[in-house]
Amino acid sequence: MLPLQQFNAFIETNTLFSADDKILLAVSGGKDSVLMVQLFKQCNYNFSIAHCNFNLRGDEAQRDESFVRLLAHTLDVPFYVTHFDTKSYATANHISTQMAARTLRYNWFEEIREKNCYQFIAVAQHQNDAIETLLLNLTRGTGISGLHGILPKRDFIIRPLLFLSRQEIEDFVADNNLDFVEDSSNQTTKYARNSIRLNVIPHLQAINTNLERTFAQNINRFAETEEVLRHVVAETRQKLEKWEDDDIFYDITAIENLTPQRLLFYELIKPYNFTESVADEVLASLNKQSGTSFYSETHRATIDRTVVIISKLPKSSSTEHHFLHVNEDFKVVDNQKISLFKTESLLFEANKFKAFVDADKLIFPLIIRYKQEGDRFMPLGMRNFKKLSDFLINQKIPLPQKERVILLINGNGEVIWVAGLRQDNRYKVNATTKKVAIFELSNQ
Amino acid sequence: MLPLQQFNAFIETNTLFSADDKILLAVSGGKDSVLMVQLFKQCNYNFSIAHCNFNLRGDEAQRDESFVRLLAHTLDVPFYVTHFDTKSYATANHISTQMAARTLRYNWFEEIREKNCYQFIAVAQHQNDAIETLLLNLTRGTGISGLHGILPKRDFIIRPLLFLSRQEIEDFVADNNLDFVEDSSNQTTKYARNSIRLNVIPHLQAINTNLERTFAQNINRFAETEEVLRHVVAETRQKLEKWEDDDIFYDITAIENLTPQRLLFYELIKPYNFTESVADEVLASLNKQSGTSFYSETHRATIDRTVVIISKLPKSSSTEHHFLHVNEDFKVVDNQKISLFKTESLLFEANKFKAFVDADKLIFPLIIRYKQEGDRFMPLGMRNFKKLSDFLINQKIPLPQKERVILLINGNGEVIWVAGLRQDNRYKVNATTKKVAIFELSNQ
Repeated sequence: MLPLQQFNAFIETNTLFSADDKILLAVSGGKDSVLMVQLFKQCNYNFSIAHCNFNLRGDEAQRDESFVRLLAHTLDVPFYVTHFDTKSYATANHISTQMAARTLRYNWFEEIREKNCYQFIAVAQHQNDAIETLLLNLTRGTGISGLHGILPKRDFIIRPLLFLSRQEIEDFVADNNLDFVEDSSNQTTKYARNSIRLNVIPHLQAINTNLERTFAQNINRFAETEEVLRHVVAETRQKLEKWEDDDIFYDITAIENLTPQRLLFYELIKPYNFTESVADEVLASLNKQSGTSFYSETHRATIDRTVVIISKLPKSSSTEHHFLHVNEDFKVVDNQKISLFKTESLLFEANKFKAFVDADKLIFPLIIRYKQEGDRFMPLGMRNFKKLSDFLINQKIPLPQKERVILLINGNGEVIWVAGLRQDNRYKVNATTKKVAIFELSNQ
Repeated sequence: MLPLQQFNAFIETNTLFSADDKILLAVSGGKDSVLMVQLFKQCNYNFSIAHCNFNLRGDEAQRDESFVRLLAHTLDVPFYVTHFDTKSYATANHISTQMAARTLRYNWFEEIREKNCYQFIAVAQHQNDAIETLLLNLTRGTGISGLHGILPKRDFIIRPLLFLSRQEIEDFVADNNLDFVEDSSNQTTKYARNSIRLNVIPHLQAINTNLERTFAQNINRFAETEEVLRHVVAETRQKLEKWEDDDIFYDITAIENLTPQRLLFYELIKPYNFTESVADEVLASLNKQSGTSFYSETHRATIDRTVVIISKLPKSSSTEHHFLHVNEDFKVVDNQKISLFKTESLLFEANKFKAFVDADKLIFPLIIRYKQEGDRFMPLGMRNFKKLSDFLINQKIPLPQKERVILLINGNGEVIWVAGLRQDNRYKVNATTKKVAIFELSNQ
């Protein structure tokens, strides 16, 4: 017997979709998605099947594709399939293979959904997926918003199996003799998620055999608490934000009266892409120097006597990148990567791929860009300025390489480092240096 | 070097205590508490040492006591020590040994604190303890309030080592050659907390080597979010609660307009000891039958047309216990335990220690109590009432056993079961029964 009644109750309680909606099912061929297909079939819902071949597991990927194609054919429902070059996409976008697969998959589903007028895309995630997501978010750092893990419905994505645990799915698949394919990558602890699944959750289940239900309840409570926070932030925003043209003004006294101040102020400026640590710095500087500015990718926050003003930054050209903050790890310009380390040790080795800079002289945001007409700097060991173009000629840098030269520029416009060639004399580490920032150039 | 600067910064940031306060340090003799003592000593704070001997680990417990006594003597600070019969206390109170140790310990500390005018009791918990508490709460089920784990300060308890990870403590203890005793029970996975420490956290650390800092940040955010919730609940309570004498009235329309309704309504009635599942039931019944009542240990919630009324229950005698709700698992009366199971199966075996009852006939709260003058019931298989005293004589129940007989009484006052002897004919399972409640008598 399939859990049709619970399935329909879950769809209804969470208003996932209505009986005449057309749903696109994301089907890998694994147990979860195969059970989802059967539930949709038995309930006579209007659905189609979509399958992604990520070309990551050789013959196995091909076997899975054939399996799902046959399933759709047998059930006589429309079938969509696509092939991705996941590895290349990951490399080109500097992201993990898993993240690449995720992005490609959801983009493609959404494309099909729009083109073919499906109301929703259904994915077969279950309660254990939700637990894994929650634990993974906790491990990597999160606020309340990372605790709902996976929601039953978000935009056009629905998760109609979220009422079932992995074990229940396995039991239903076995009891109903459903055919499925096994994804061998699930059996390795190659990925963080798999380690949580295989190494962590069994120990939690030993403490609470009803772990899935307990977490489902936890997640409900967290989602509700998040809703409370969202309301409060919206109200606070309404009260505190004064707009003048494109600029937003917050009264400093009003900011100081927020409770809890840190969380609410961060939530207020988060939509303007400020990070939590920058929000903390703004708060710490509220009554210090008027005129101090802090940056996000898109906005500047300036403390101006009694107010904090948020204003939009002019769009930076695609070849200009910013170190917004001393805690950023690296920036990639095309495939050249500049990493930033901090140290209190003054021991270092000379190396043209590394610049050792007096950290107290840095003014954020730092800019990374290609050379421009008129750039000049004071090469390490010299007391005079030199035109960058002359310097590059003297160094006998070949043209193609010259075109790839990137500069690290201080917030005041001065060159800190001609990356991979020579740093500026003004920023070198000397006897009075307290903290050292190390910039390293490497290929991404 | 000891981390004196960070220690003082943490005390200041969290306003744990002021320089002239007298602090009672809880010292087990383990690494954590030994480091705490040294930090207090080096900073010249005014402190004393208290040690609990739980008599749980034989000679080891004696060794630890001697060690801490000597430490206090060497440092020339006041020393308090006590011995607990932890096992007996646990048995007498039907709680785990760990919970017993915890209760005994905190009660005793508080006693000393009051008597001797200490401002605070300092316990040596660190960041990893906080992570363990958070994960344990999650595993057992929690709302946002279980996520701050351990706070730096709560009532008279302060935790001045919460800025350190276990590894850092171990390093400081080793670097400073501090003497300590090893608690062998920490090395077993006997307890849930130890399993989380030894089996779960290492896998999370493999994903994030900076786990302690990340969790410290998570916990901060959760504590702030909880504060937001607390404010909202206080405001909502202010707006919605109308008092008339000792009764509280909530307008049903106002309850229906709460967002998120479930969480806020539960938070509203939680101080009156209602459980989350009872709160859910009240909500589900808002517009159904006027006059329906729901119970907590101390209060009744009655739906009365347009309002929900919360009123105090008269104090029940110590020998009267209630099944407040169909989802309660068991009640213990002295050391007799009545458990409640639900089933949809109608298959069962006759057994005088079990009563199979038509669940639809139950009216909550059910009462469990000793027999009283005048009790009568309709023994299973009979059509007439019988005095309970006559029944017990006929059954030839010896006097001491007779005095221990407990009755399960329905919400309407009728006897459902003379526990362990005979159930009532009116409540038996018959052909029209849909759901069966099974009550089982056992020794606790």
